[in-house]
Amino acid sequence: MSKVEPREITTVLFDDFELLDVCGPLEMFGAAGQRFSIRLAGPEPGPVRSAQGPAVVADVAYRDAPPPDIVLVPGGIGTHRLVDDVGFKGWLAEWAADAQIVTSVCTGSGVLAAAGLLDGYRATSNKRAFAWARGQGPRVEWVPQARWVEDRKRWTSSGVAAGIDMALALIAHLHGEQLASTVADRVEHEWHRDPTWDPFAAKNGLAPTQE
Amino acid sequence: MSKVEPREITTVLFDDFELLDVCGPLEMFGAAGQRFSIRLAGPEPGPVRSAQGPAVVADVAYRDAPPPDIVLVPGGIGTHRLVDDVGFKGWLAEWAADAQIVTSVCTGSGVLAAAGLLDGYRATSNKRAFAWARGQGPRVEWVPQARWVEDRKRWTSSGVAAGIDMALALIAHLHGEQLASTVADRVEHEWHRDPTWDPFAAKNGLAPTQE
Repeated sequence: MSKVEPREITTVLFDDFELLDVCGPLEMFGAAGQRFSIRLAGPEPGPVRSAQGPAVVADVAYRDAPPPDIVLVPGGIGTHRLVDDVGFKGWLAEWAADAQIVTSVCTGSGVLAAAGLLDGYRATSNKRAFAWARGQGPRVEWVPQARWVEDRKRWTSSGVAAGIDMALALIAHLHGEQLASTVADRVEHEWHRDPTWDPFAAKNGLAPTQE
Repeated sequence: MSKVEPREITTVLFDDFELLDVCGPLEMFGAAGQRFSIRLAGPEPGPVRSAQGPAVVADVAYRDAPPPDIVLVPGGIGTHRLVDDVGFKGWLAEWAADAQIVTSVCTGSGVLAAAGLLDGYRATSNKRAFAWARGQGPRVEWVPQARWVEDRKRWTSSGVAAGIDMALALIAHLHGEQLASTVADRVEHEWHRDPTWDPFAAKNGLAPTQE
């Protein structure tokens, strides 16, 4: 028999995370019925302030977070501190190593790269911070033009709103296209199903010039 | 001289609010530089749980919330209790009466309608709960097919993700189209600028049949 319990998605919160990077995907997983269970890990249990101001409550401290099925690492200006935090990177690398799928939104892929979790994988990131992300992972095959990149156990999305499209693609991957379409309709979101759709790469000088 | 302080946007949180209804628009206002200041009001200060699970922290209790420039009322399954809460509706009607702009996302328009704040206005709502919203406001001119509806001091959006497009339109209304486009690009969101764009109406039997 296949696994019937919901998959546990653990989101890694940190000071100055990007609000929509977290809430966009979690809205999609939350709208997919009982198939996903949402946990939020933070430096300590309790409120963690986003870069936009509103605080979201962590259920558990990093050190106490159970092994996750799926990991979600958001971006946000706080990632610039995280990539230099040796203790955090050590924890993330070990804790996420055996996860079924490790995902990131926006500059969260810079954090995954800095922790070594993207070595040997293809990945993308926020288009305005692409050079920064690239600098975190010299052994990552960075893909500049992509809404999201799926490479085996690593799913990385482009900036902020792209996390919503990646989450829907992940729901489709795990539970079928029909459920993902139903979720998109339920939240009245026009789902970009094509992972190569990315008008923002060209706007930031990251796409090949085309005639 | 025109007003130079940031406009205060107060979001009304309640148990079982819809996570993206709040975080989508607040991401847009947060990405618009220092032009908006974000406040969150709840039944009491502290965590308020969303329908999807994650809790967002209210800065202030309803009774202590200062007069807002802009009001944002989200939807979510919790709205079904709110429309029967006489004390809440009385507070909302009085507190929001003098706001510069009162907005809602999704079934939040049902709450505004139940509080009498949409009487004599055109408004829209979530497409899957449209009949319910309509039932809250017999003196509202309900518009079934719309991404959002702007009618003087009332801006109401369609379901969940539509709040993002409405927030961008509101930023354009207050600060110009260029800023709104910049914000949309910054968060890598494909902004639907046309308020009549609404494929979800037809999917829910709310649009006129067209040849």
